[in-house]
Amino acid sequence: MNAKVPAELAAPVSVPETKAPRGARRKRDTRAKLLGAALHLMAYRGVAGVRINEITEQADVGFGSFYNHFESKEAIYATLIDEVIGHFAVALDKLGEQLNDPAEKIAASTRYTLLRGQADPVWGRFVFQTNFSRDSMSHGLGRYLLQDIGSGVSAGRFTVADLPSVYIAVGSTILGGLAALSDRTLPDHEPDILGDAQGLSVRIAAILLTILGLSTQEAQEIANRPLPQIELPANPFAQV
Amino acid sequence: MNAKVPAELAAPVSVPETKAPRGARRKRDTRAKLLGAALHLMAYRGVAGVRINEITEQADVGFGSFYNHFESKEAIYATLIDEVIGHFAVALDKLGEQLNDPAEKIAASTRYTLLRGQADPVWGRFVFQTNFSRDSMSHGLGRYLLQDIGSGVSAGRFTVADLPSVYIAVGSTILGGLAALSDRTLPDHEPDILGDAQGLSVRIAAILLTILGLSTQEAQEIANRPLPQIELPANPFAQV
Repeated sequence: MNAKVPAELAAPVSVPETKAPRGARRKRDTRAKLLGAALHLMAYRGVAGVRINEITEQADVGFGSFYNHFESKEAIYATLIDEVIGHFAVALDKLGEQLNDPAEKIAASTRYTLLRGQADPVWGRFVFQTNFSRDSMSHGLGRYLLQDIGSGVSAGRFTVADLPSVYIAVGSTILGGLAALSDRTLPDHEPDILGDAQGLSVRIAAILLTILGLSTQEAQEIANRPLPQIELPANPFAQV
Repeated sequence: MNAKVPAELAAPVSVPETKAPRGARRKRDTRAKLLGAALHLMAYRGVAGVRINEITEQADVGFGSFYNHFESKEAIYATLIDEVIGHFAVALDKLGEQLNDPAEKIAASTRYTLLRGQADPVWGRFVFQTNFSRDSMSHGLGRYLLQDIGSGVSAGRFTVADLPSVYIAVGSTILGGLAALSDRTLPDHEPDILGDAQGLSVRIAAILLTILGLSTQEAQEIANRPLPQIELPANPFAQV
């Protein structure tokens, strides 16, 4: 309650000094609650399957306060994509900085994404839901994937006869792995079918590298390298 | 109105002869309308995103009559999966009968599925929606895919180090292609990005064969073979 408020969040001049920080905090809290509720609902039902009153009910805020923060359901969805994907992109960038080989970079990003989906199934389902639309090539994680494939092709590391079909194959395989690893609807996580998450993420990364033209042997060697340690950013909406 | 009714659909003994066939026809019509409406809604929103009253409104039948045909939303969804997938499986079987090589069989089934999704986007979206759940391995088209991969492995035609990850990669790539080809939300179908549907379906089939261990060259040769002609079964709910 008495936590210090950073200067950049301090009250606008016209508002009494003692009340504004609390008002601003409350406004931010409500916004975070709405985003958290929308993330959870849309992760499992997609944007079309969720109504605004369900978001406000799950967030435990009044229906009308939704419109203090977002214009529409599509607006909160767009904000979620920006924040969730943007947040994760920072992690992928950190990972990429530690690796020079485009093949190792794609393998590590894939494994990291799949393990994140297993650790945080709501996140995994949300990313899965958002990324099968074609604008995932311009927004969403598809943009990073296209960049990574492109760098590998330019560097002569990948052999890609036809970029669109390779993009569909690589992207869909990552999303399919994410769906499998973040699917908590079946009892016992079917360990006998999927094996452990670590192992599955390595084997899927190896398949991606063969799609990109590497030999099976080299693909397996690269996919099995130790994953660089990076600070795993917390899902900003996970606790809500 | 005066169409002959086949003997097996004739009236039960206790019902007056002249009325029963019409009653039975009407009941079948209502059922088909409900299935058609549910197919369309669930194709774009998934089962969780659709309410029963939306199905009856779209079908233009009374809310209560839903329960004369189906116990619940899950029941109509299960019926749809059985009928849509069962219907398509007949086509895949006919295709398979004309081909002996497991590699050519998987390439042809994939191309056929993708072209069907492009010709009938509601069908494509529905199949896409249903097949990223893990029970697609026991129900849904995943079962056929697993069989086809298994036959190819037994025959020594495919080299598969790890069946689950290969199944995820192959299945997801088919579904990703289906999503791309049945996505009518963007203007002009982005022909510059995806190329023509025929070409894309061939290139995706070739990638699948390389995932299954064939050389790039052989994969491309097989994926480019003429597609056997089979009777394309109409979507039983398309006209509703």
